[in-house]
Parts: sequence; structure tokens; C-alpha cells
Amino acid sequence: MGGDNAPAMVVDGLEVAAERHPGARILLVGNEAMIAPLLARHRRARAVCTVRHAPDVIGNDMKPTAALRLRHASMRVAIDAVAAGEAAGVVSAGNTGALLALAKIVIKALPGIDRPAMAAIGPSARGDVVMLDLGANVHCDARNLVQFAVMGDVFARTVLGLTAPTIGLLNVGSEELKGDDTVRLAAEVLRASHLAPQFHGFVEGHDIAAGTTDVVVTDGFTGNVALKTGEGALKLIGELLRQVFNRNWASKLAYVLARPGLDRLREWLDPRRYNGAVMVGLNGVVVKSHGGTDAQGFAHAVDVAMDMVVHRFNERIREDLARIRLDKLVAQEKNGDNSRLATA
Amino acid sequence: MGGDNAPAMVVDGLEVAAERHPGARILLVGNEAMIAPLLARHRRARAVCTVRHAPDVIGNDMKPTAALRLRHASMRVAIDAVAAGEAAGVVSAGNTGALLALAKIVIKALPGIDRPAMAAIGPSARGDVVMLDLGANVHCDARNLVQFAVMGDVFARTVLGLTAPTIGLLNVGSEELKGDDTVRLAAEVLRASHLAPQFHGFVEGHDIAAGTTDVVVTDGFTGNVALKTGEGALKLIGELLRQVFNRNWASKLAYVLARPGLDRLREWLDPRRYNGAVMVGLNGVVVKSHGGTDAQGFAHAVDVAMDMVVHRFNERIREDLARIRLDKLVAQEKNGDNSRLATA
Repeated sequence: MGGDNAPAMVVDGLEVAAERHPGARILLVGNEAMIAPLLARHRRARAVCTVRHAPDVIGNDMKPTAALRLRHASMRVAIDAVAAGEAAGVVSAGNTGALLALAKIVIKALPGIDRPAMAAIGPSARGDVVMLDLGANVHCDARNLVQFAVMGDVFARTVLGLTAPTIGLLNVGSEELKGDDTVRLAAEVLRASHLAPQFHGFVEGHDIAAGTTDVVVTDGFTGNVALKTGEGALKLIGELLRQVFNRNWASKLAYVLARPGLDRLREWLDPRRYNGAVMVGLNGVVVKSHGGTDAQGFAHAVDVAMDMVVHRFNERIREDLARIRLDKLVAQEKNGDNSRLATA
Repeated sequence: MGGDNAPAMVVDGLEVAAERHPGARILLVGNEAMIAPLLARHRRARAVCTVRHAPDVIGNDMKPTAALRLRHASMRVAIDAVAAGEAAGVVSAGNTGALLALAKIVIKALPGIDRPAMAAIGPSARGDVVMLDLGANVHCDARNLVQFAVMGDVFARTVLGLTAPTIGLLNVGSEELKGDDTVRLAAEVLRASHLAPQFHGFVEGHDIAAGTTDVVVTDGFTGNVALKTGEGALKLIGELLRQVFNRNWASKLAYVLARPGLDRLREWLDPRRYNGAVMVGLNGVVVKSHGGTDAQGFAHAVDVAMDMVVHRFNERIREDLARIRLDKLVAQEKNGDNSRLATA
């Protein structure tokens, strides 16, 4: 029931998703009276969906604390199904803050993960890039960043299909001495871990679009700002290019001539292709679709969830967490060497 | 002597600057034997410059601690001239870390400024935007952010010529409850200050390119990453567009037809037009030119320094600092309400 054009957009999206994943079984949670007539018109979606009625809806402006009280909201009922083991994961186009809060409280964090994070995929000059955290945690300590690196690595392997993704830690410079204790300590632990061969060290803002590494790890404040800054820059250029091609008959003709390439570029940058921010580090798969997306975008979010389930995302994280030694980190933190942690 | 093509690029730049500021008097510091023949070929630069010999050069890879020991380096001699009151400001295309360290130690911070910051101007959909801090301070407390806002306001008034620039505080959301104690406390102080009518509240990453506010205030870690992420996104699009126009004869013809608009767009985004990061909050004007810029870019950095001197940048900051009440902030910090401060 979440998203700008729900539930119609969601059912349209499931029609697309059902074609791609005919073996999937989807529990569709929401207002049955609204959903039933939509499903009646979507043959493929109908074949894979079971409807579960939920009378309430968590609005987009609702605070997480208020959302937590709505026990019969569609988002809550869907999340309860994951917590109960009835569903392997949940895809929602609704209120992000509510989804994150509900998922953390109801589904709970994976053993060994201190804080779940938001991860997403974006375009770069050298292929898709996974970035996390995108805003779930304003403050992060070195342990969090190391755990994000473990999860980012598994995400790139399961969703992007890479065998040994490279990992970068976002910083204000690439030299070892740059940044603060938090990033330096996280880098030190990663260099001594099973991820060492894949760990590229520090990367800077421009490395995200350059695709210097397949995974970019950062705290939620910086990651959120970086993601939105990059999106903002792309949007600005898009608008300016529209003006350039609309100046006069010559520029309009230029648009027609260059259109195949421009269309490919637009498709490549299409946010729908990257729809589906993932809340990683939970006892279940939780994918947040953009609220303003369309059926194609929503289907992509379902793809991401399916990839994570089929490729055993959480099992792999559990295995990898067991391989990383955090004891040294804990000792250093206790000695107060990690200034950010003390206040997190 | 700093920068990729120094000192030739610098003298070329001064020739351009001298034409724009014929009344300026420039103390040109560096290796006299290299500079003299260059000046001999630049009539305008010669008319405004006095050469001061400095035998040493601070290399681009030199650590600030090593740079501090080179007392006869061109950068040091120029900074000494500012500290001695011989020069109102310094423009350098050299080592950024060394310039910042030397300026802080030799020129020192303005009374009332806890930490100098790096500020720069960039393009947005609604005109030029001032952003700070861009990396001088990895951790910032609410006091720092408030002081950055004061300096950003004066910067926008003196360099962009705005009468009442709007100010935004970068955060992970625009709602009042978003972010951490640091940004919320800074926002609270700004709302109660003389800057209240100009204070827009929180802005997000995408607001930078959208030009939602004329000034964007943030900590040095986030600012540095945001700046480089935006630059990286623009660079990626530039490369992709080059490919689009190079596909075949039709796209090449399209380029020719759209060229006037594309050239204007490229000029508008030209980094040389925005060259000159400013270290604000020091007892003198300190402008850092990009090391890889050309004469036009360097002349722009000189323009920025001239604007700041002529429009009494530092005097205005002193006046405005006297108007802002930081006592409440100090009290709250002492009570430990400001978590970031405690560890800064």
C-alpha cells in the first residue's frame, strides 16, 4: 500500500516480476478490496500471489514511533510474515523511516551485526557500484564500517554476481594518514582480514562515479549526502542538456540525430534500473523501492530481493562474519582509541 | 612556485589579473632566477609585481610537518608577508595541506573563530553556491558549524555580491528532527541569531546542485566527499556525452549543430571559473588555486582574493561574530549535549 501510486503500481510491477520469476511465491499484503480487482486484471501476478488483508496503511509522513503502533498496517503485517519465517523477505515502496524502524524491531539484526545499514547500487564509469550505509546510521564506528564492508562484499557477489569485488572506504583523501581514527582503524582491520586482497584502501568522492572500487563503504551521514549530491548533479546536467537541445531548430535537429546515443545514456542512468535500496544486516531480506517508481522499477526491486534470497545473502554474511576478527577492534575501542565509537 | 606548471602558469595568470586589477600591488615570491625572465615577457604583470626571492619550494607530496621546517620556501615567505602585514592576502597553487597548516600556524585564526575552514564556489541550477567546510576539519561541533555559517554568509556577500544570501545546513533530511545533535544544535543557534531571516534550515545533498540555498554549511568530511562526488558525477557525464557524440556521422553532425549550446554549458561548468578555494577564518586572505589550473583559472583565484580584500571580508566577519550568541551553545556543550564536540 506504500508508494505514490499504490496499490496499482505494485500490482503492475508484480505482473512484470512474475514473468521473470514464475517460480516465486508472493504474499501480497494490503487492502483486499482494493487489491482483488487489480489482481483480477493481471494474470501472471495472480498466479504467484496470495493476498493477505491488512486494513491500515502507514502514511508517508508518519513518524516511525506512530507507525510502530499500527499493528494491522500492510507494512507491519508483511514484516511480521518475515519475522515468522513465512516469507524470506519483504519489498515495500512505503515510508523508509518506518520500514527501517519496523524491520529493526520486528525482524531484528543478524547475529554479529551491530547495526543494519542501507545499501544501493548505482552507475559508474566501470560498472555498477554498491554503496553503504546510505542513511540508516548517522554515526558509525570502526566496527560498523568493517561489518558494512563484509555485507557490501556479499551484496556485490550475490546481486551483481562479482566473484571478488573490490572494496573502498570513503575518506577525504586516499593516503593512509587521512581522515579520523574511525576510518583508519576500520582500514587497519580490513587489511588484516579475509577481505584484504579485495580491500583497495581509502577512496574519495570522485571515485564513486569513476568506479574505482565495486563497493564503497561509509557512514550513513556521508553516504546519504554523497548519494543525493551525485543524483543532484546528474539531474542538473539533464535539465541543462534539455535546454541546450531546445535552443533553436539546429539544436532540435541535433537532438534527433544524437538521439539513439542519448536514449542509451538515459536508459543507462535510469533510476528505475537501480531501484531497490536494501536494508542489510537483518534476519531477512528487506528491500525499499522508491515510492515514485513505476512497474519496471518495482519489478527491479523484486529482482534484487529474489537475488538476495536465491543466493543466500544472509547465510553468506554469517559465514563471512565468522571469518573476521573484531577482537582487536574491541580492545582498541575499550582503550578509547576510537573516538567516534565512544559517542555513537 | 606551486602548481603543475609553476612559475610560468602563475606569471601568465598574473598578466591576466593585472589587466583586471591595474591598481593591485603584487608581491611575487619564488625563485628569482626563474621568475625574472618570465616577468620580462609580461608587461602588465611586471607593472604590478615586486619579486621576493625564496630559494626553496614545498613539493606537492611534502607532509605539512616537513613543510613547516622549510622557512625559506616560497609559500612560507609569502605567508610570512601576510602575517607581517605586508600583504593583505596570499594566493597559492601549491600543496593544500601545507598551505592550510602554515596559514593556521603563521597567520593564525581570527579572534572568535575556533577553526578556519575551506570554502569554495560552485555552479547550481539557481546561480553560484558557496560551500564550506570542504576538508579543513574532519570533525566539527555545533560552534564550528555556526561560525562556518557566519563566514559563508560574509563570503557570499563579498565575493558573490549577494545582499542577503540564504543559508542551509547540510543534513540527511530536511525535517527538524533529522541528523545528530551537532547539526540540530547548530540549527537552533542559527534560528536564534541575526542570520535567522536568511537561514533556510536543513538541506540535503541534492539541494547543492539545485541551488536551494546560496550557502551550504557542513563539516569538512561530508563537504569534501560531497564536493568530489558532485565533480565525479559531472566528469562521468562529460565522458559519456563525448562517447554519445562520437558514435557515428549522425552524432558527429549533431555535435556540430548543438555546439553553441554545448560550449556554453561547458563554459558554465568550467572548473577554472570556480578556481580558488578560500581558507576562511584566518587573520588574512588565503586563496588556494587548483594546482592544475591555467592562467585564466589562476587569475580567477586572484579575483577572489581581491574581492575579499576590497570588500573587507575579515572585518565583516569580526562584526558579525560579535552579533552571534554562542554562550548558550557553550553551556549545552559543557553539559555533554553535543556528542560530536566531546570527541573533536
